[in-house]
Amino acid sequence: MADHLEPHSVQPFGYYGAIIHSLSPETLEIIEQGLIVIDGAGKIALVERKVDRSKIKEVLVKHGFDGSTKIEILDNGQFLIPGLIDTHNHAPQWTQRGTGRGRLLMDWLNTITFPHESRFADPEYAKVTYASCVDGFINQGITTASYYGSLHGEATKILAETCLEKGQRAFVGKCNMNRNAPDFYKDASASESIQVTEDFISHVRKIDPTARLVTPILTPRFAIACDAEVLTGLGQIAAKNPDLPIQTHFDEAEQEMEITKELFPEFDNEADLYEHFGLLNRRSILAHCIYVGEYEMGRLKALDCGVSHCPVSNTTGGMFGMAPIREYLRRGIKVSLGTDSGGGYSSSIIDAMRQAFVVSVARETLCGGKDTSLSVAECFFMATLGGAQVCCLEDKIGNFVVGKEFDALEIQTVGPHSGTITPIEDIDKLPDLFEKFIMTGDDRNIAKVYVKGRQIKG
Amino acid sequence: MADHLEPHSVQPFGYYGAIIHSLSPETLEIIEQGLIVIDGAGKIALVERKVDRSKIKEVLVKHGFDGSTKIEILDNGQFLIPGLIDTHNHAPQWTQRGTGRGRLLMDWLNTITFPHESRFADPEYAKVTYASCVDGFINQGITTASYYGSLHGEATKILAETCLEKGQRAFVGKCNMNRNAPDFYKDASASESIQVTEDFISHVRKIDPTARLVTPILTPRFAIACDAEVLTGLGQIAAKNPDLPIQTHFDEAEQEMEITKELFPEFDNEADLYEHFGLLNRRSILAHCIYVGEYEMGRLKALDCGVSHCPVSNTTGGMFGMAPIREYLRRGIKVSLGTDSGGGYSSSIIDAMRQAFVVSVARETLCGGKDTSLSVAECFFMATLGGAQVCCLEDKIGNFVVGKEFDALEIQTVGPHSGTITPIEDIDKLPDLFEKFIMTGDDRNIAKVYVKGRQIKG
Repeated sequence: MADHLEPHSVQPFGYYGAIIHSLSPETLEIIEQGLIVIDGAGKIALVERKVDRSKIKEVLVKHGFDGSTKIEILDNGQFLIPGLIDTHNHAPQWTQRGTGRGRLLMDWLNTITFPHESRFADPEYAKVTYASCVDGFINQGITTASYYGSLHGEATKILAETCLEKGQRAFVGKCNMNRNAPDFYKDASASESIQVTEDFISHVRKIDPTARLVTPILTPRFAIACDAEVLTGLGQIAAKNPDLPIQTHFDEAEQEMEITKELFPEFDNEADLYEHFGLLNRRSILAHCIYVGEYEMGRLKALDCGVSHCPVSNTTGGMFGMAPIREYLRRGIKVSLGTDSGGGYSSSIIDAMRQAFVVSVARETLCGGKDTSLSVAECFFMATLGGAQVCCLEDKIGNFVVGKEFDALEIQTVGPHSGTITPIEDIDKLPDLFEKFIMTGDDRNIAKVYVKGRQIKG
Repeated sequence: MADHLEPHSVQPFGYYGAIIHSLSPETLEIIEQGLIVIDGAGKIALVERKVDRSKIKEVLVKHGFDGSTKIEILDNGQFLIPGLIDTHNHAPQWTQRGTGRGRLLMDWLNTITFPHESRFADPEYAKVTYASCVDGFINQGITTASYYGSLHGEATKILAETCLEKGQRAFVGKCNMNRNAPDFYKDASASESIQVTEDFISHVRKIDPTARLVTPILTPRFAIACDAEVLTGLGQIAAKNPDLPIQTHFDEAEQEMEITKELFPEFDNEADLYEHFGLLNRRSILAHCIYVGEYEMGRLKALDCGVSHCPVSNTTGGMFGMAPIREYLRRGIKVSLGTDSGGGYSSSIIDAMRQAFVVSVARETLCGGKDTSLSVAECFFMATLGGAQVCCLEDKIGNFVVGKEFDALEIQTVGPHSGTITPIEDIDKLPDLFEKFIMTGDDRNIAKVYVKGRQIKG
C-alpha cells in the first residue's frame, strides 16, 4: 500500500515519430516527425511538429530541455495516440461479460447480473477479481475508466485501491440500489446506502487526497433501484461536493423508462427526475441516452451533461438501440464511449469505436438519412478527447497539448506480435495505418500504456 | 511442391473431454466426457459420450482400436468444436481489409478494391500475400474457405497451391469481370475470361485430382461486371461439370441491383438472371442476399442454393443491410457465414457470428418483431454445419459424426495465452465457457486447428 502514496514522479523522457490525436470531433491531427517531451510530473512539456530526426537534440536544447533526455524513436508502423477513455464500465460484471445476450434488461439484471455482483460481498473475491479486471482494461489501453462498483463499501474501496496501485486513472462509485433488486443484493436501507457512500468517498479521499488518479463518483444505479430518499441523499452529497462526478443509466430501454414512469409519475421524463434530485450537472455521465426526446436534449445541453455511448451493449441486449450521436454532436452535447462491460461483451474501446460506426450507419440507413454516419475520426474523438470532456478532465487529458498529463498508447502495427491487424504494406501511409488499427487492431497492437507519464503496460 | 502431392495420411489419434457441435440450427450438442478417434485417413472413426476417464483404453479396445492410440486429454477450460467455414472471402483484398469503410459499394470497388486486386498481376506479390492471407485465416480457425481470387489466372493458381500446401480446405475461383471495371483491372475479353477460367480449373484438377482439399469454383464477380457472353460461357462450364461449385454476389446493395436491372432489363430479378445462365443450382453460394423478395426466396429454395451471410461488411459499408436470416431458416434455405474479408473488416468467423447476432437483434427490433433474433447456437450452426451444407460438403465436414473428416479446433479458454476472453470461473459450466468463447474469444483461444486430421496450427 505504501507505493501508491508516494508522490508521483517519472524521469523526463520523450517520443519522436508519428503522433495522432483529435483536436475536435471532426479534426484528427496526424503529426509526422513529431517530438513530444514529458516532464518529471508526467506532464507534456513540449509538442513539436516536422522535426528532422537529426535535429532532435538541437530542438530539445532550444526549448530548454536537457539534450540527453531519453527520446524513444517510433519506427515505421508505430505511432502514439492518447489513452482510451471508457466512461461506462461495471467492474463487478468482469467475469460475466458477454453472457446472457438477447435477454431484456430487467431479466438480464435479475438472472445474470445481480447474482454475479452479489459475490463481491467477499473482500477476498473482490481483491482477486478486481485485480484481473483492472489489468484487463489497462491491457486494452484504457487509461481512464468510470467504474460502477457493486453495492458493497468494502469491495468498492478495494476497487479504488486496485486502480491506484496499478496506476489507472479512474472514477469509482459505490452503486446505490435499495429497491427492485433481490433481497440477497440490495442496500439494507436508504440511510445505509447513503452512509456507505459517504464512508466510501472519505476513504478514496484519504488514499488519493489530490485525486491524482482516483476520484469517487456518485453512482445511483438508476431510478428504478433507488427510492426518493436515496436520490435525495445523493443530491445532498452532490450539492456539498460540487467537484464530485455523478453517473447513472439514462433512457436506456423502453422497459426501463416505463417502470421509471410508474415509480415516479410526478416526472414526465428522466431528465426532470434526476434534475429534481440535484443529480444533473456538468459532471453527470449519462450512460446510453438512446431514447432522449427533444425536451430532454435541451436539458442535457443546458446543464452540460455528458453522454456515454455504449454501442456494443445497445446492439446485443434484447433490443437494437441506436443512440442519436450525430444529433448530440450537432447540438454540442458532450459525447464519449463506454464499453459497458459486462452488458457489453467487449473490454475494448476499439470495439466500441467500430460498433459506434455500425450504429451510426444503421441510423443513417434506417432513420431517413438525416443523421449521417460517423467518420472514423469522430469515433476516435469520442474515445479520447470526447471522453475527457464528459469526465470534465479535458484540461488534463484527452490529447497531446502542452500542460496536459501524458496518458498515451504506443501503437505497434507490424512485427511478430501484431496479432490479426490487416497487414501493413509499403504503399500504406499514416492515415492507412491509423484506419487499419481502428478497424482491425486489438490489444496486441497496444505495445505500451502510459498514465500521467508512468508506463503501466509493456 | 512434392509434399502436397503425397497421399494424405496421419497417425490415428483421438481426443477425450468436452466436445461441442451442432446437430441442426437449433440443436447444439454439448458432449461431456466425449471420446473421439480419428483414423489414418483423417476420418472420424468413433464418437462416444459419457466415457469414464479410467475406461478410455477399455472403450478403445471394445471398438476395435489399438488400446495405445494416442488420446489427447482436454482439461478444464478446453473443448473441441468443428472447424469454422468461411463461405465468402476475397483473398486479394487481404491487405485492404477494413479500409474505406462508409463508402457505397461501387465507389469502394473503384477507389479501394480494384487498385488493390490489380497488384496480383505480379505472381511474386501473389505468392507472398496469399501465404500471409491463408496463414491468417488458418490462425482464425477457418478450416474451409470459399475464396474469390483476382481476375489473374496465374495468381489464382498460386492461391490454390498455397491452400493445398498449408493444408486448408478451399474453394478457389478466378474472378470473372470483363466490363464496368477500370481498364487496368478487367478481363481483356469474354473469350479470354472463359479461357483463363478453363485453364485454371484444369490446373487445380491437376494439383489436387480428387479434390482432397482444393476445388475450383466458378466465380462471376457479379452481373454488373460480366456481360452475357461471359455468363453464358460460365453456364456452359457449369453444365459440363455438375460437380463445380459456383459463387457470386446476390442482391447485396440497392445500388448494385439497380445497375444490374439497367444492364439486363429482360430479367425482373437476379434469381431469374443467374438461373437463365445456368448458374443457380444446389452448388451456388450466393453472398449477402439482403434484399431478396418473396419470388426470389422461392427460387433459392426450389433450386437449393446456399446463402453466405456477411454481417460484418453488410453493416459497415455505406448502408446497414439486414439479411433476413430467420426467414431463410424458417423456409429451410441453406445459410452460412462469410467474413467477406476485405469488405468485412474482420478475418474472424467468430466476429461474424457476433455480428450475425447483432443484425438479427436489429431485424427483430426494427422489422416489427416477426423475425426473432438468432440464438448463439444458431450463429454457431451457420459457422459450422450450415457452412458445410452451403458448400455441399455436409457429408464430409461440419460436425463430429463417424465417417466425416476431422476438421476441428481445440479451444483453450484459460491460461496465460488465452487473450482477452472473459475470465472463466469455477462456477462456470460448459455452456458458460462456450458462450464466453463465442461472445468474447478470438484466435488466441484457438490452440490447434485440424483439417482432415492433419494439424495445421499450434
